[in-house]
Amino acid sequence: MPTYTAPVRESRFIIEEVLGVERYSNLPGFENATPDMIEAILTEAGRFCSEVLAPLNRVGDEEGCTRHEDGSVTTPTGFKEAWDQFVAGGWTGLSAPEEYGGQGLPQLLATAVSEYLLSANQAFEMYHGLTMGAEASILVKGTEEQKRTYLPNMIAGKWTGTMNLTEPHCGTDLGLLKTRAEPQADGSYKISGTKIFISSGEHDLAENIIHLVLAKIAGAPDTVKGISLFIVPKFLVNEDGSLGERNGVTCGSIEHKMGIHGNSTCVMNYDDATGYLVGEPEKGLAAMFIMMNAARLGVGLQGLAQGEVAYQNGVTYAKERRQGRALVPDARDPNAKADPIIVHPDVRRMLMEAKAFNEAARALVLWGSLQVDLLRRAQDEETKQQADDLLGLLTPVIKGYLTDKGFEAAVNMQQVYGGHGYIREWGMEQFVRDARIAQIYEGTNGIQALDLVGRKLPKDGGRAIMSFMKMVGDEVAAAKDNDDLKPLAEALEQANGDLQASTMWLMQNAMANPNQAGAAAYPYMTIMGIVCLGLMWLRMARVSSDALKNGSPGDDFHQNKLVTARFFAARVMPETLSLRRKVEAGADTIMALPAEAF
Amino acid sequence: MPTYTAPVRESRFIIEEVLGVERYSNLPGFENATPDMIEAILTEAGRFCSEVLAPLNRVGDEEGCTRHEDGSVTTPTGFKEAWDQFVAGGWTGLSAPEEYGGQGLPQLLATAVSEYLLSANQAFEMYHGLTMGAEASILVKGTEEQKRTYLPNMIAGKWTGTMNLTEPHCGTDLGLLKTRAEPQADGSYKISGTKIFISSGEHDLAENIIHLVLAKIAGAPDTVKGISLFIVPKFLVNEDGSLGERNGVTCGSIEHKMGIHGNSTCVMNYDDATGYLVGEPEKGLAAMFIMMNAARLGVGLQGLAQGEVAYQNGVTYAKERRQGRALVPDARDPNAKADPIIVHPDVRRMLMEAKAFNEAARALVLWGSLQVDLLRRAQDEETKQQADDLLGLLTPVIKGYLTDKGFEAAVNMQQVYGGHGYIREWGMEQFVRDARIAQIYEGTNGIQALDLVGRKLPKDGGRAIMSFMKMVGDEVAAAKDNDDLKPLAEALEQANGDLQASTMWLMQNAMANPNQAGAAAYPYMTIMGIVCLGLMWLRMARVSSDALKNGSPGDDFHQNKLVTARFFAARVMPETLSLRRKVEAGADTIMALPAEAF
Repeated sequence: MPTYTAPVRESRFIIEEVLGVERYSNLPGFENATPDMIEAILTEAGRFCSEVLAPLNRVGDEEGCTRHEDGSVTTPTGFKEAWDQFVAGGWTGLSAPEEYGGQGLPQLLATAVSEYLLSANQAFEMYHGLTMGAEASILVKGTEEQKRTYLPNMIAGKWTGTMNLTEPHCGTDLGLLKTRAEPQADGSYKISGTKIFISSGEHDLAENIIHLVLAKIAGAPDTVKGISLFIVPKFLVNEDGSLGERNGVTCGSIEHKMGIHGNSTCVMNYDDATGYLVGEPEKGLAAMFIMMNAARLGVGLQGLAQGEVAYQNGVTYAKERRQGRALVPDARDPNAKADPIIVHPDVRRMLMEAKAFNEAARALVLWGSLQVDLLRRAQDEETKQQADDLLGLLTPVIKGYLTDKGFEAAVNMQQVYGGHGYIREWGMEQFVRDARIAQIYEGTNGIQALDLVGRKLPKDGGRAIMSFMKMVGDEVAAAKDNDDLKPLAEALEQANGDLQASTMWLMQNAMANPNQAGAAAYPYMTIMGIVCLGLMWLRMARVSSDALKNGSPGDDFHQNKLVTARFFAARVMPETLSLRRKVEAGADTIMALPAEAF
Repeated sequence: MPTYTAPVRESRFIIEEVLGVERYSNLPGFENATPDMIEAILTEAGRFCSEVLAPLNRVGDEEGCTRHEDGSVTTPTGFKEAWDQFVAGGWTGLSAPEEYGGQGLPQLLATAVSEYLLSANQAFEMYHGLTMGAEASILVKGTEEQKRTYLPNMIAGKWTGTMNLTEPHCGTDLGLLKTRAEPQADGSYKISGTKIFISSGEHDLAENIIHLVLAKIAGAPDTVKGISLFIVPKFLVNEDGSLGERNGVTCGSIEHKMGIHGNSTCVMNYDDATGYLVGEPEKGLAAMFIMMNAARLGVGLQGLAQGEVAYQNGVTYAKERRQGRALVPDARDPNAKADPIIVHPDVRRMLMEAKAFNEAARALVLWGSLQVDLLRRAQDEETKQQADDLLGLLTPVIKGYLTDKGFEAAVNMQQVYGGHGYIREWGMEQFVRDARIAQIYEGTNGIQALDLVGRKLPKDGGRAIMSFMKMVGDEVAAAKDNDDLKPLAEALEQANGDLQASTMWLMQNAMANPNQAGAAAYPYMTIMGIVCLGLMWLRMARVSSDALKNGSPGDDFHQNKLVTARFFAARVMPETLSLRRKVEAGADTIMALPAEAF
């Protein structure tokens, strides 16, 4: 059975050494994020994840959730007890506002903790993760009364939340949605319709479930412009805050899925359910995007998290399993008939790819989370605007590229196990099945690529991408006279050149024919992902090089970072060469066949 | 629920137009392979696959196999009836020697049929596929008596066969195996030991199961050099051919796997089971490799087969599902609120990648099968030697590259379905789970890459790879003055250049440090795979270009081939650029970290 150990030192390396969190101690919430506090939180979260959540991961996969005849849903054995411990430990409100009972800590820190939760048990984390998304929408768009009514119990983990977008006939294209909202005399609405793929839609963990539901108010335009957002609680809430009547929302069935069985993915039926408008009518999509953007970062994190736990277990097996002889005689164990398979270059190739991905992906997600903090908490407009630009640009890349590579890492770590990787008991195939969903939900990765190319690049005349490429160029230039960094800087310069050329190609071609943008989007997103991780490696290498020059902490931590950075430069960065060619190949050969020819 | 239609015209295009099967009508067995006969066999096989096997694919996945307390195993509902039909149709002996009751048809044709079987129901086909592998070993290495005793019933589908290599502590490294064979006075052996991952190990389809088992005879060297091969029938066979005593071999349990649930993957316990030596003692590995090489081609075919069935269902959904608007206004359906998603370039990207892969992979596997026929049936030694060289070189590429790409195609076709792709009822996620095993068994793809680089390249002073690269170069040169072929020829020239440079790099670096070969193996195999498919596209395009010039058959079949070839040239072939860089990056950064640093 797989095990999990939270990579606390790795998280601290990024937060403290690479991002230099102490530089932000003037921001609200950051004043408490001292090294001692960070260590205490991460260590304790890690312990909970290793000891409580990780052992339930396979239980959740094997048992799944059970819907009973009355529509109630039971989560897998142990989930309820684990949830109670999770709530009692105060983990549900880490970065939530203190005003509503949260701890007000930086998102940066909450993200580091979420990684551990997701590695240990993705299906479990999602009960919490969706709740955070729902909180975000209510916080930004809700009325003061809505905030007071719902947020304290959600932040405390007594209630959970969901996002209700998808319907049987529409996912990406929400303009097609059919769920209707009829205005009532008291200002509330009656919501009717069917929603599918609703994660954590019904379960036995919390006393109440606060559904955020997209619907069209009677008479609104039958397009995306007619969509409004509603709060539909499972139990209506009385004025004194106690639970009232059961609302007209029920779980019709639980989907049978490829993975994340421990999370109840529900068909939800709304039958004249009482709902309360969030924000303005017909502005539902904007309100939903608040939680969607948060969710997309969270889904990107899932890619890393599955890559990390798969990697840890790949390493364990590669060190224990003996099979064949090292190719180089002096690497052979003279006391055994076979060597641990970690001696074989092709096994190491897979381990190094996963390791180099995980470490840079962690840096990227945490850097992205720092932008969330800066956007929310910085005092000056320039910082906020830069954070907003960067976050907009990075969000589709984090969601799309990190989930692609996390899935690939999970597949490769399963491969390290040979035949045993295909057997359920070893747990590696679960990581593959669980990782797969992250490429699909919250907007498929193809949609992320279109968001990047179609919306994020042209926004504000390309300001975000231009300053990103300049930032990379500047850091490359500054690194070239350091021998530790030179190979990486040169590789990154090449990749950034491919990014620049691809961006230029898009500017020149996409306006005339939008299919060119559509055809280029996926390889473009992948180039962007590689450049982002390359930039993270450059920063990690720079910090490590400095640490070594200033006297390292007595182990090989920083030295190993330089080795892994060189691996990334030599074996991953060259991928942009081919990807740029794919961008420049254009849409013609993709669009040329008539539909009947498929 | 997914459907399947056998791509009969595609198979015939390769067999008749590209490979020109009529040129081989002087070879034994080929005289009957007339266009009419080929059409009749493929059409009838396709009908059986669509109507009988494909509907059982999900049944097999959902039910799996059941082991009863007495060790007997029941296959999923409908499998037994389907097997009986399969046997009654004469499908089990298509290319088997007429001498033992087979039909003696070309392997080429049997491979085309196997593709259909695998697309329709991989788990079902494996009961037959393993039998063919076992037949091959007995045919080549068995005594005349063994052939007469076992082959007719196996070829007739009354009995099935298995391969028993793996043990709990050894898969790749068979030198470690512990199963023992004690010589008996009557010339037989008593076999004892435990084998795992035995596909089709025990089931209710056939009257008897002929296990081919690797074991060490008492006193033999405890290395790969001490391994012998044995026939161990489930039921001993009396002199008159009737079934005798139950032998000491039982199914200890059925593995719980990620996929191919319809096939019984068994732990087999041998407890003083009576076994009969096949071939010479301590030459078991060579005898086993006869069936392994056949099996590796069959597994490569599984990559294509899963890619094909996933593609067909991806296309169906992409044409039916309406979501969003075409980016180009005049592609929009004025009568609907949304367009079929096949209008979106990123959906088409995935469809085109799968299509371009499937069509070229089919050509490659069939070309490989033709080499099997030439090796067995050609009269002159030069032809046989060329076929042997080519087959040796292509086998690891067909197994490794085609299963990697087949899995990728299945994943991408699941992606076309968005959230529905993750739901079991739609069947797309089964293709992903089933396709995954092909990258693992019969030697993981990493082992295939090592086989290619470590054994197949240096063999006979590099004769096979040198003549392959020259063949590609010659065909490129001959294609350049045809405008239809020029872009493809140029792209293939570039890729072949990358293959040549990578081969050169290996020659210069691998001798001094074998880790360089190990580190380069995987990207090298991938380059080789791309060049192979590129060569297939060049041949398909040449034939199509000629057909168009000579008056096409009145539809767009050949025209569409030229379009797809151009897609492959523009969007797939450039991948060799990056892969060559990975080869040339060498082993240093892969091997630099100490094991403790992982």
